[in-house]
Amino acid sequence: MRGLWLEDRRLRVRDDLPVPEPPPGEARIRVALAGLCHTDLELVRGYYPYAGVLGHEFVGVVDRAPSDPSWEGRRVVGEINATCGSCATCLAGRSSHCERRTVLGIVNRDGAFADYLTLPIANLHAVPDSVPDEVAVFTEPVAAAFQILAQVPIDPRDRVAVFGDGKLGQVIAQVLATTGCALTVIGRHPGKLAHLAARGIAAGIDPPPARSADVVVDCTGRREGLQAALAALRPRGTLMLKSTFAGDTALNLSAIVVDEITIVGSRCGPFAPALAALASRAVVVAPLIEARLPLADAVDAVARAGAPGVLKVLLVP
Amino acid sequence: MRGLWLEDRRLRVRDDLPVPEPPPGEARIRVALAGLCHTDLELVRGYYPYAGVLGHEFVGVVDRAPSDPSWEGRRVVGEINATCGSCATCLAGRSSHCERRTVLGIVNRDGAFADYLTLPIANLHAVPDSVPDEVAVFTEPVAAAFQILAQVPIDPRDRVAVFGDGKLGQVIAQVLATTGCALTVIGRHPGKLAHLAARGIAAGIDPPPARSADVVVDCTGRREGLQAALAALRPRGTLMLKSTFAGDTALNLSAIVVDEITIVGSRCGPFAPALAALASRAVVVAPLIEARLPLADAVDAVARAGAPGVLKVLLVP
Repeated sequence: MRGLWLEDRRLRVRDDLPVPEPPPGEARIRVALAGLCHTDLELVRGYYPYAGVLGHEFVGVVDRAPSDPSWEGRRVVGEINATCGSCATCLAGRSSHCERRTVLGIVNRDGAFADYLTLPIANLHAVPDSVPDEVAVFTEPVAAAFQILAQVPIDPRDRVAVFGDGKLGQVIAQVLATTGCALTVIGRHPGKLAHLAARGIAAGIDPPPARSADVVVDCTGRREGLQAALAALRPRGTLMLKSTFAGDTALNLSAIVVDEITIVGSRCGPFAPALAALASRAVVVAPLIEARLPLADAVDAVARAGAPGVLKVLLVP
Repeated sequence: MRGLWLEDRRLRVRDDLPVPEPPPGEARIRVALAGLCHTDLELVRGYYPYAGVLGHEFVGVVDRAPSDPSWEGRRVVGEINATCGSCATCLAGRSSHCERRTVLGIVNRDGAFADYLTLPIANLHAVPDSVPDEVAVFTEPVAAAFQILAQVPIDPRDRVAVFGDGKLGQVIAQVLATTGCALTVIGRHPGKLAHLAARGIAAGIDPPPARSADVVVDCTGRREGLQAALAALRPRGTLMLKSTFAGDTALNLSAIVVDEITIVGSRCGPFAPALAALASRAVVVAPLIEARLPLADAVDAVARAGAPGVLKVLLVP
């Protein structure tokens, strides 16, 4: 089969990969559509060591599931952390942090930019018929946005500011808007801000008043964005970190102590509310699709996804 | 009256200061004993702009309280944030972050290294007769330690590691020990670690296993200490920041995102549980007293408090 192969920071489309045989408890999925994410770009840049097929956002159809054939033929999305279920971390209810985990297209598990992938059946979520592929493929990033709500209670009275109008900020803003909180998105791109305004979300280039927001979310990936987010935060407010940053970032920790700021790192989230929000159109993703490219052009697709200002690039196997 | 005066990073004992007249709602207190703290040293180094009498840890006797003479003659300690009570921050229940606050010996309010100070009567706590001055003077740092428990629930099943065996770490460890949690203190000074061992607290120079602690507290004030604390923290664990750091500190934010770490800045805390813990001897502070010096020698006392390895230096007006 074909797959976008990463090795030593080099990408190439291979057509000599074996079609994977699902191990016990796993299913093989024929990928229908896959999405490119910031993390893919970081893997290519070598920020984390990984060699194998890239990609972790997908929708597809179960092709083979010997452990439970009732899944065969079902259209699914899948949680990306494949966990052991028996270590102390799993047993403590933090299985997405399982120290023995593999992660689809990120850690020791071939990913979704390929004709087929395998995942544990326990990771799969059936996609409702009403949700088309080009919407379902956003389940993973929408779930990552819902993780914020799983970590920090957000009240309708809260003033929340999202810094960053890129593809992650667009999704996070829509998810946070479901809480009814007083939401503002701060970005730099008129076109992207217009997408948010069309969804009834206040969006602009100016940050909120200093020390006014109860919760800020940084998804800029830039130190200046992080600093602007911190400046907008009130004492005892919460900064949610969604972006990853290459290398170390300088922070004024004394200000965090004096203002008793809470900083919360946030990664993967729950798929069920994400699928529900996509099905109900509480979260609308169609305007975020920048391009659909065939898997054969995956190397170009990665370059395009990394260009400034580009939203979601999809790959069609 | 006399007072240790800070101006332009220069310290001197003045004897020409007027005895303060308490404004409405405030009391004048004759200082019996005052304690030197890391924050005092930072103010001298110019990390925050402040000019006036230094000092915020004290015990004393109310000398004049025209608004409520029933306080006169009572031995008291006092919360250091004098707040407006009417701003949005105060009304939201976060009065220690009042944007119009003055802070004893830190922000726009003459401090405790003097014969007299004034504070709002609402800030005062009567000291039980059973608690001598040299114990009561620790109420403020013990309260700062209790702030950790006010911010993060600590369960007897939690593995907690305190990094730093200095005067703040010594107090924090004893306060955390009251929860019954599995506690370890990591320090660098055999004598200080022995104080903790004498209190039945596990203490040593080796950090706990990597990624094993549920909660870590950094009170080292050093970047290497902070890094060691983070290394000991399990995924989804909580780092409490108690130390202030001069300037910016480099942090690997991607690790905080991937491991979904929570970082909580922690400052002033509640006086009532602190006084109760001192009265019950749940927290024992006598071994932490390094020296008692007269106010006339306050400049030397500051130098001594800033020397490596020195615990608490007290000033006697």
